[in-house]
Amino acid sequence: MDLQTLHQLLQSVADGKLPVENAAKTLANISSEDIDYAHIDHHRSLRKGFPEVIFGQGKTPDQIIGIMDKMALQENVILVTRIDRIKADKVCEQFPDAVYHEDARMVVLKKHEMPNRGRGTILILSAGTSDIPVAKEAYITAEAMGNSVKSVFDVGVAGIHRLFRHKELIEEASVLIVAAGMEGALPSIVGGYVACPVFGVPTSVGYGASFGGIAPLLSMLNSCAANVAVVNIDAGFKAAYLAGLIATRTATALS
Amino acid sequence: MDLQTLHQLLQSVADGKLPVENAAKTLANISSEDIDYAHIDHHRSLRKGFPEVIFGQGKTPDQIIGIMDKMALQENVILVTRIDRIKADKVCEQFPDAVYHEDARMVVLKKHEMPNRGRGTILILSAGTSDIPVAKEAYITAEAMGNSVKSVFDVGVAGIHRLFRHKELIEEASVLIVAAGMEGALPSIVGGYVACPVFGVPTSVGYGASFGGIAPLLSMLNSCAANVAVVNIDAGFKAAYLAGLIATRTATALS
Amino acid sequence: MDLQTLHQLLQSVADGKLPVENAAKTLANISSEDIDYAHIDHHRSLRKGFPEVIFGQGKTPDQIIGIMDKMALQENVILVTRIDRIKADKVCEQFPDAVYHEDARMVVLKKHEMPNRGRGTILILSAGTSDIPVAKEAYITAEAMGNSVKSVFDVGVAGIHRLFRHKELIEEASVLIVAAGMEGALPSIVGGYVACPVFGVPTSVGYGASFGGIAPLLSMLNSCAANVAVVNIDAGFKAAYLAGLIATRTATALS
Amino acid sequence: MDLQTLHQLLQSVADGKLPVENAAKTLANISSEDIDYAHIDHHRSLRKGFPEVIFGQGKTPDQIIGIMDKMALQENVILVTRIDRIKADKVCEQFPDAVYHEDARMVVLKKHEMPNRGRGTILILSAGTSDIPVAKEAYITAEAMGNSVKSVFDVGVAGIHRLFRHKELIEEASVLIVAAGMEGALPSIVGGYVACPVFGVPTSVGYGASFGGIAPLLSMLNSCAANVAVVNIDAGFKAAYLAGLIATRTATALS
Amino acid sequence: MDLQTLHQLLQSVADGKLPVENAAKTLANISSEDIDYAHIDHHRSLRKGFPEVIFGQGKTPDQIIGIMDKMALQENVILVTRIDRIKADKVCEQFPDAVYHEDARMVVLKKHEMPNRGRGTILILSAGTSDIPVAKEAYITAEAMGNSVKSVFDVGVAGIHRLFRHKELIEEASVLIVAAGMEGALPSIVGGYVACPVFGVPTSVGYGASFGGIAPLLSMLNSCAANVAVVNIDAGFKAAYLAGLIATRTATALS
Amino acid sequence: MDLQTLHQLLQSVADGKLPVENAAKTLANISSEDIDYAHIDHHRSLRKGFPEVIFGQGKTPDQIIGIMDKMALQENVILVTRIDRIKADKVCEQFPDAVYHEDARMVVLKKHEMPNRGRGTILILSAGTSDIPVAKEAYITAEAMGNSVKSVFDVGVAGIHRLFRHKELIEEASVLIVAAGMEGALPSIVGGYVACPVFGVPTSVGYGASFGGIAPLLSMLNSCAANVAVVNIDAGFKAAYLAGLIATRTATALS
Amino acid sequence: MDLQTLHQLLQSVADGKLPVENAAKTLANISSEDIDYAHIDHHRSLRKGFPEVIFGQGKTPDQIIGIMDKMALQENVILVTRIDRIKADKVCEQFPDAVYHEDARMVVLKKHEMPNRGRGTILILSAGTSDIPVAKEAYITAEAMGNSVKSVFDVGVAGIHRLFRHKELIEEASVLIVAAGMEGALPSIVGGYVACPVFGVPTSVGYGASFGGIAPLLSMLNSCAANVAVVNIDAGFKAAYLAGLIATRTATALS
Amino acid sequence: MDLQTLHQLLQSVADGKLPVENAAKTLANISSEDIDYAHIDHHRSLRKGFPEVIFGQGKTPDQIIGIMDKMALQENVILVTRIDRIKADKVCEQFPDAVYHEDARMVVLKKHEMPNRGRGTILILSAGTSDIPVAKEAYITAEAMGNSVKSVFDVGVAGIHRLFRHKELIEEASVLIVAAGMEGALPSIVGGYVACPVFGVPTSVGYGASFGGIAPLLSMLNSCAANVAVVNIDAGFKAAYLAGLIATRTATALS
Repeated sequence: MDLQTLHQLLQSVADGKLPVENAAKTLANISSEDIDYAHIDHHRSLRKGFPEVIFGQGKTPDQIIGIMDKMALQENVILVTRIDRIKADKVCEQFPDAVYHEDARMVVLKKHEMPNRGRGTILILSAGTSDIPVAKEAYITAEAMGNSVKSVFDVGVAGIHRLFRHKELIEEASVLIVAAGMEGALPSIVGGYVACPVFGVPTSVGYGASFGGIAPLLSMLNSCAANVAVVNIDAGFKAAYLAGLIATRTATALS
Repeated sequence: MDLQTLHQLLQSVADGKLPVENAAKTLANISSEDIDYAHIDHHRSLRKGFPEVIFGQGKTPDQIIGIMDKMALQENVILVTRIDRIKADKVCEQFPDAVYHEDARMVVLKKHEMPNRGRGTILILSAGTSDIPVAKEAYITAEAMGNSVKSVFDVGVAGIHRLFRHKELIEEASVLIVAAGMEGALPSIVGGYVACPVFGVPTSVGYGASFGGIAPLLSMLNSCAANVAVVNIDAGFKAAYLAGLIATRTATALS
Repeated sequence: MDLQTLHQLLQSVADGKLPVENAAKTLANISSEDIDYAHIDHHRSLRKGFPEVIFGQGKTPDQIIGIMDKMALQENVILVTRIDRIKADKVCEQFPDAVYHEDARMVVLKKHEMPNRGRGTILILSAGTSDIPVAKEAYITAEAMGNSVKSVFDVGVAGIHRLFRHKELIEEASVLIVAAGMEGALPSIVGGYVACPVFGVPTSVGYGASFGGIAPLLSMLNSCAANVAVVNIDAGFKAAYLAGLIATRTATALS
Repeated sequence: MDLQTLHQLLQSVADGKLPVENAAKTLANISSEDIDYAHIDHHRSLRKGFPEVIFGQGKTPDQIIGIMDKMALQENVILVTRIDRIKADKVCEQFPDAVYHEDARMVVLKKHEMPNRGRGTILILSAGTSDIPVAKEAYITAEAMGNSVKSVFDVGVAGIHRLFRHKELIEEASVLIVAAGMEGALPSIVGGYVACPVFGVPTSVGYGASFGGIAPLLSMLNSCAANVAVVNIDAGFKAAYLAGLIATRTATALS
Repeated sequence: MDLQTLHQLLQSVADGKLPVENAAKTLANISSEDIDYAHIDHHRSLRKGFPEVIFGQGKTPDQIIGIMDKMALQENVILVTRIDRIKADKVCEQFPDAVYHEDARMVVLKKHEMPNRGRGTILILSAGTSDIPVAKEAYITAEAMGNSVKSVFDVGVAGIHRLFRHKELIEEASVLIVAAGMEGALPSIVGGYVACPVFGVPTSVGYGASFGGIAPLLSMLNSCAANVAVVNIDAGFKAAYLAGLIATRTATALS
Repeated sequence: MDLQTLHQLLQSVADGKLPVENAAKTLANISSEDIDYAHIDHHRSLRKGFPEVIFGQGKTPDQIIGIMDKMALQENVILVTRIDRIKADKVCEQFPDAVYHEDARMVVLKKHEMPNRGRGTILILSAGTSDIPVAKEAYITAEAMGNSVKSVFDVGVAGIHRLFRHKELIEEASVLIVAAGMEGALPSIVGGYVACPVFGVPTSVGYGASFGGIAPLLSMLNSCAANVAVVNIDAGFKAAYLAGLIATRTATALS
Repeated sequence: MDLQTLHQLLQSVADGKLPVENAAKTLANISSEDIDYAHIDHHRSLRKGFPEVIFGQGKTPDQIIGIMDKMALQENVILVTRIDRIKADKVCEQFPDAVYHEDARMVVLKKHEMPNRGRGTILILSAGTSDIPVAKEAYITAEAMGNSVKSVFDVGVAGIHRLFRHKELIEEASVLIVAAGMEGALPSIVGGYVACPVFGVPTSVGYGASFGGIAPLLSMLNSCAANVAVVNIDAGFKAAYLAGLIATRTATALS
Repeated sequence: MDLQTLHQLLQSVADGKLPVENAAKTLANISSEDIDYAHIDHHRSLRKGFPEVIFGQGKTPDQIIGIMDKMALQENVILVTRIDRIKADKVCEQFPDAVYHEDARMVVLKKHEMPNRGRGTILILSAGTSDIPVAKEAYITAEAMGNSVKSVFDVGVAGIHRLFRHKELIEEASVLIVAAGMEGALPSIVGGYVACPVFGVPTSVGYGASFGGIAPLLSMLNSCAANVAVVNIDAGFKAAYLAGLIATRTATALS
């Protein structure tokens, strides 16, 4: 989208010449921008409330930088997921304000801090120490979207009393994200306990008959707790995105 | 739970002797009730906002009636899912106010209409005519929980213009449920279009390499739209339960 | 085996002419008996402490009766598993002392009550009402082997407080059998709580991505509780057999 | 095949001594040529309209060069697929006119440009940036076969409006190739929109429950659009080969 | 779509007032028609050259009749696939001109014979006698679409000389459909022999490790013949639809 | 094939006018015979030493009878496999000499007893009583092919001493067929013990994680005994056919 | 847990002021200890008889050392499983008393030798040389828990007489652990022979259709021997843990 | 086994004091030899006609050398399979007469050439160039066992005429081994053509939906040719071993 056009449009809104709803609809129809290897979806942040996120795996550093260059003109926050240190170093060299979170394998580039969009809290639980990278991907994403986020790690079902020590945190959350590998039972336990939605994230952590996350994936899909939905294996980002949509609404509700 | 105790407790609240929060906590700890073949979780409606739902498949009519007898004393609405006509007739004979929805394979027993809990709307889409039973299970559940629900059926991706005719309904919804079999692509399309959460329900409809719903299940888990979460194959009830949690909150937010 | 020979052999032991160990070794080498369609393993009750159990599925009533005829001469208790009512009726007509347990799909024929072999208790838990047939197969088997057995049904993880109401029973058991379908999380929870061995029995109960018991099977195999072992899907008999071996030993230990 | 024989045969045709059809049949029966590790199918270009293509994976550079040596005598174009840079460098050293396309992992050796065999256009779409290598394999193949080819990359279903920007290209194509990983929904969308055949190529791009391309493979097989056929995972070459057969015919149709 | 409007529009074209291309574009944008359980895609026959086909499985006879009622006003041919005799009898009672093909499980309703759309021939091969129902579904469909179709059944690879007896038919075809169960090798053999496209249809016929068609599906996907594309298991209809698109073009090419 | 031609040909051989080898080659090229739904491979008995076998499953009684009619003119023995009693009764009505073996689900029609083709013995073992139908299919087939066959049933690995009672039979056999379901371990045990080839036949008998024969199939494929080959699940016929080829040769060797 | 409190508590027990059972219950409720990335379950050794075991895979050396630091204050023995040499070297540098067992990939840190907890013997068998690492993991674990352990390696079923040479060891054991890859038949053979419980450990050793341990896993689950239970693929630790629980009890029984 | 004993025993046979059969039986019962990590099965060459083969994968060079040391005293030929160059170099350094075949990944150590055990020929076919390593493993094994072996490589079904050029070789063989990846159709084609047994070896060569050899494995198991048996994926050794057993007998038969 042409920046000049955007400014004129927004000026019209500011001047009261163009109603907000009309402007929003117009913007939701603007087109995407082509570079050779990508169609950047500029109006996603308008249409969906958050810009496109760059999936780093399978892209070269140059491709990532190229996409970020285009996005940086218009977006306040840019996330790159599934990016290893070597690629990240090249990216961060180009964008000195970008921060690399190695445990979550993410690059975050913010122009300024996101204002807190909601007042509901997202609570992120991980069943084991090895599930932390996935949980951290969720954490960084949810925070970058402007949510208040809390986390408790290593509270798996083999010593379920460890979970109940955090009862208060659990009861106060608006929405929960639970990352678990191995038998993936934690979302069911938590889901049976709370009234709010729970997003289960199966992780590929485990060995033997875990089969790269199939075991916890099936567990969570078959959860007997009715408030448990599931996202893809290791998809911490997606759980956080969904949780953010819900927490924001909850927050608005309280204001 | 002892009914007398419950009355005394509520009287104390009514008299101002017992603060509401204390009473609520007490009730959230009351125990379940045993009959020979089931542990009825009476305080689920207190803890979770909606009573336990009876999964009809694999239970005899007598078992279902026995559980309903116990629940009927305390709950305003009782749902039985996955129940065929033969079992349902026996159940409805016993409970004349119960209604059997054959397309959704559900029995609903309400003491009185549920007050509308939220003002957000749940929109239920189905990709094909054959996905309607699953979509209907979601519809009946969401409605019984006190939500306002709308639906559009048979808008699959082979003629995607049929979907876009319902653009307005889609944009107004607070949360969407999308039931699809075969390639299960509809949730991705819809998810890329709306800003709110989308719950994909893979259905076991299809043939050949659909493998009883595995194909649409994998499609939905791998959706490139970040706002799509997934529930079990044919689990219309679960999607509706989750959607209800979110729509309620949205509604509260607007009051 | 020839009964006369057995008597002579045992007389020799009684007379002190043959040491117990020699007699036991001899008996462990006696051969099996052929009928046209089966090799009956008569010395299994000597070698293994319990006679061969007849797997009813895929056998005709005549074959079952034929095998029972041969076994009845020598064994105190005969079990037939996976036998439906129609076959069972034919069998029970032939053996009036035989009892058919429809919920467990088993026929039990006892010459006299088994003496209690152990003093340890086997506790059988089921996650849902629909898992009861499998749990009952375990119950009948364990009891027929001469164990003291207790059971609690429908204590699944969606309302885990229902489980903890039975804390005392759980803590007193020498060994646990936990039957669960759907996500199969119950053995992990229980296993994290107790010190004794837990045998998880995945059941084929469920729908959608349960895939006939694969989901709970994988859950239990991947259990993060180190004291959980697994048997085949719906194999209540096998879990009971294993539990019986252990409970017997525990019992002996206390005497 | 002996070149001299071929020339004599063709001379007879040219002289009108041998009818074209007789010659064609003769040639379709000539045999293949043996080298130690390969049976080169020389008459494939006669029988099938395009020479055998060398599948580079699992062959040594020497084997590839050996096969190319034999083919180079007779064929106008030689393709090597699935060949990495290290092997390709050795091959290109030997054949200075050969060109290595790293993104498509292919070597192309042309004696002269292929005449445009058809006037129909093949359009190649990719759902994401990461699907480009597979799409490029299709592109290079189709072009080397003498087709006119166009491509649009990164038009996946999460922002389906990006696709519709290219409406004109899509409507003008004689046949489409659609490469997609993750949920693999793009061929269905495109197939529902156009009247011509669509070849879906599932790619192994993705993570978690994509399972190396199983998810998009199943999606495409179950497509509700009747004009979608499927080739193997990552088989860009095969889709291009099939598309080329059809585009050629279409072109002929217009002349 | 309103019939009157269609007539007026076509009259304008006939009168030379409206250019053909404009009319075609208008028609391609007309909307679908809603009945309670279906969105009938009336302009599919305009957009795609053939009307929507009714997938009979999972629909009630009344639903099928309702959809046919609406379509019958506008379409020259209506196909219902996957419909058993009982449903078909009810349908044919309502539409006396409809014909039920039991071996193909299809109902065909034609207003008049389809003009032959192409001059290319579609050849349908089946590997075994048991694959005939799938092959027949392809045959009826291709014929109803106005193609000339031929078929040879039971020419599987265990006696490959049976196939070569039909060499002439094979060489004359414009496109082939090959239905095969068990090891599904026939499409590869045929594909290596002909120059035209081959559509493999795996069938669910077989036993043991055929796994309902997975074995031939994988065989066909992995075919080393580059001109073999695959459709869903048992999807005779889809193969015929694709073949029809290609044969039509070939035919046009020759006129 | 024309019978007159066959007689003339054979007469020429008998008269010494046509060498045996020439006649054999001619016959190996004669064609198959078409009836509407089948290509009967008449020269299979010449080329392969045994006529085509009719796979009864998925064929109507009329189709089976039609094929038998054609074959009966030329063959000495006709086998129909996978045929249930209802179909078999219709077939046997038409061919009064045909015999139905219900346990093996086979029809055998012999003009006269097969001469014993070999002197090697085929030994067929089954692991359990429920594997007998598959073992019987092998037995009937091997016998109909003119072999001497022996069998021992119900000698599974849970009481391996039952197997060793038959040591002599096992050591004398030229080739073994071992049918086993459940864990499918018997072929490995036997294979480690004997020097001759062993054909493992996984059966679909079992429950739970047997998955219709996948468990024993994988066991047998992974057998650490080098002399164990595998055929399809429940494919008793195929194992017998292979064993017959080998036993015949062995027999010839001794003559 | 505070050490001072523990001492006071134990002093009260020693002084007879606090009954043993009361003390034990108190201790079973003490809480876990948080470090940033782990919740250490200090009272597991009290509740379960053995401390938490550190799963080394997926943890950094620093995380492992951090957890060991906390545990070392209270526990007599610390086990780290699935730890490679590089990580182990860093750990052993920090804890000079720790011993690395490379074949079992374990670190063991003991304050002093464990007293022999039981008098029953655990016998560990491996089917092949390649299964030894898994068998060794079981050996080290069982020994560290204070059991007497024996082992026999490479006694697979292809030469079953090798197994029977160790008949005496097998008959004397209280419980057996059997590690096997490939067809995984050894636990069935052994289970059919002994009266005590057998824990099968499928290993990921093998090739082809072993599929990383699925083949032996399914074999063991489907074992026809009723005394065989199964743990996860390669889970030597878990089998040893379970065997230890049982051997301990047996031992007590004899005292 | 003690060598001295063996000599004495053989002397007794030579002297006519001990009948051959008695001696053979004695030898078949001698025991195996233990080294720390292996039970060497010395009498396998007596019992089975060929010594144990060393599976190199997962063993250290020292383990392999240790086993070879023990075997070298008694065996005329030692085979090591699945051994890479690095390990093989260490082994060959120790045994200078050993030969490493890199393409087959085997080490062969012969004291002297094996006498030709049979006069039947084993023919080994490979479908593609990439299947050659597996085919070579079969070749080296069969040859080392003393068979006459021939091979034809790269005759896959995409150009089936290449196969028929070798018609004579095929018809003369006593037994065939066919290695094929991708769709694995070659064994079916060959099996339908010849009268002798065919051993299919699925290879893990391929890509996409080949799934490491599952596609050709299923193809071969489902082969409609009754004379095709299957061995494990990539198990060239096993196919050769089986073929050797049969070829030997055939040979004997002719003498």
